[in-house]
Amino acid sequence: MKTLKIIKIGGNIINDDVALTSFLEQFSIIDSSKILVHGGGKLASKLAQQMQVHVKMVDGRRVTNTETLDIITMVYAGKINKNIITLLQKNSCQSIGFTGADGNTIVSEKRQVKDVDYGFVGDIKKVNTSILELLLDAGVTPVFSAITHDENGHLLNTNADTIASALAIAFAKIYTTELYYCFEKNGVLLDVNNDDSVVEKINHKKYQELLEDKIISDGMLPKLNNCFHAIDHDVQKVCIGKSEMIYNKTAKFTTIEI
Amino acid sequence: MKTLKIIKIGGNIINDDVALTSFLEQFSIIDSSKILVHGGGKLASKLAQQMQVHVKMVDGRRVTNTETLDIITMVYAGKINKNIITLLQKNSCQSIGFTGADGNTIVSEKRQVKDVDYGFVGDIKKVNTSILELLLDAGVTPVFSAITHDENGHLLNTNADTIASALAIAFAKIYTTELYYCFEKNGVLLDVNNDDSVVEKINHKKYQELLEDKIISDGMLPKLNNCFHAIDHDVQKVCIGKSEMIYNKTAKFTTIEI
Repeated sequence: MKTLKIIKIGGNIINDDVALTSFLEQFSIIDSSKILVHGGGKLASKLAQQMQVHVKMVDGRRVTNTETLDIITMVYAGKINKNIITLLQKNSCQSIGFTGADGNTIVSEKRQVKDVDYGFVGDIKKVNTSILELLLDAGVTPVFSAITHDENGHLLNTNADTIASALAIAFAKIYTTELYYCFEKNGVLLDVNNDDSVVEKINHKKYQELLEDKIISDGMLPKLNNCFHAIDHDVQKVCIGKSEMIYNKTAKFTTIEI
Repeated sequence: MKTLKIIKIGGNIINDDVALTSFLEQFSIIDSSKILVHGGGKLASKLAQQMQVHVKMVDGRRVTNTETLDIITMVYAGKINKNIITLLQKNSCQSIGFTGADGNTIVSEKRQVKDVDYGFVGDIKKVNTSILELLLDAGVTPVFSAITHDENGHLLNTNADTIASALAIAFAKIYTTELYYCFEKNGVLLDVNNDDSVVEKINHKKYQELLEDKIISDGMLPKLNNCFHAIDHDVQKVCIGKSEMIYNKTAKFTTIEI
């Protein structure tokens, strides 16, 4: 089977023009099939502030009302996605921007209201790979922003980490699929202040030990849950670290194992 | 040759949720291959106002500085384009949103400064059809917002009418291509206040006569120039009128002839 790399980048790259330009240069020369997934960084909150739209947070999560959904759609699918596409084209990386609505690629349902109403937030129900396969076969790199839809005319804000793992799981049947979560640290650290204290491999057992020893910080929990969800659903390789892990062979990072 | 319909919609449809929903329902059931091109309507100016960005106009044309380009990218390629895509999907119209950067489909160059510096405005140099052909063959409808790029990492604001005619001309070699400009009137009117006074057919000679008689208003000039440019470059059919002309057989509209 051919290899497909699915790479998710976050705020530390998106918020920094120099880091983004440099990352996209390196990303462009990856010679296997690849998909890029990006979040929105600080730009959505900045625009909300400029537009005087109040961003409501519950438990560290944004509550997505109509105004916030518009802002997210404008910033993620508009400004960030299209700037990434034109920069990739500059590096001769043939690419097309996607939300889950484009090509009906990622279908989600609005999160049900239990204790908290998160508003227009989507939980992924289905990934349709056929159009993406056609484009990947033609040498095109799809670039996803963190928006899906419900097939009923509504866009939904969806976590970018979850989009990356859902894509990786869907493609694991067709490609040897590798999932890379890029963030600001070298991976899971034994000492959060020491970037050299990387745990190079984590399996389920090790993960439980680290949780019991309170080594895993709260912010890392959903990210690692996405990692384990992917490795448990036939994704061949799941890694978490700085973006250098993709192109620098001496970079340290954490590999997730079953 | 198979038929391709290229349909451009403007502010009168985009600014009105009911009109847009109704148009997209009708658009979805067109059974030939099709491409939709949309402008941005009033939303970009509204957002600029909310963000307190001053929109500078020269001779009725927006001057596109960096802030304005960001706003256009957010509104056109983000909010409007993605809402159109999810509404099309609701109507089972498989579609993908495009700027000229996506798939490197429309390459432009920044307009040279002569008397006026229009800023980040692009004049179209080249249309690359191969990825679009692949998608059209797979039953996908591309939906273009009015943004192109220069292949050097810069997005450029580009007139939606011009994008529609450039696409039609590029596809005229491959498809029997029909170009429809939808706007708020029934076409070219002998009396601007009488929507029944439609000139049903205009060729070059008739156009000259209407110009001499000052029947053609200033606002229609660039639109009609795009129409004649298309019909002079092998586009098989060029029409201008209300969107009803596409699906209502009794609708009146203007057809452009050589």
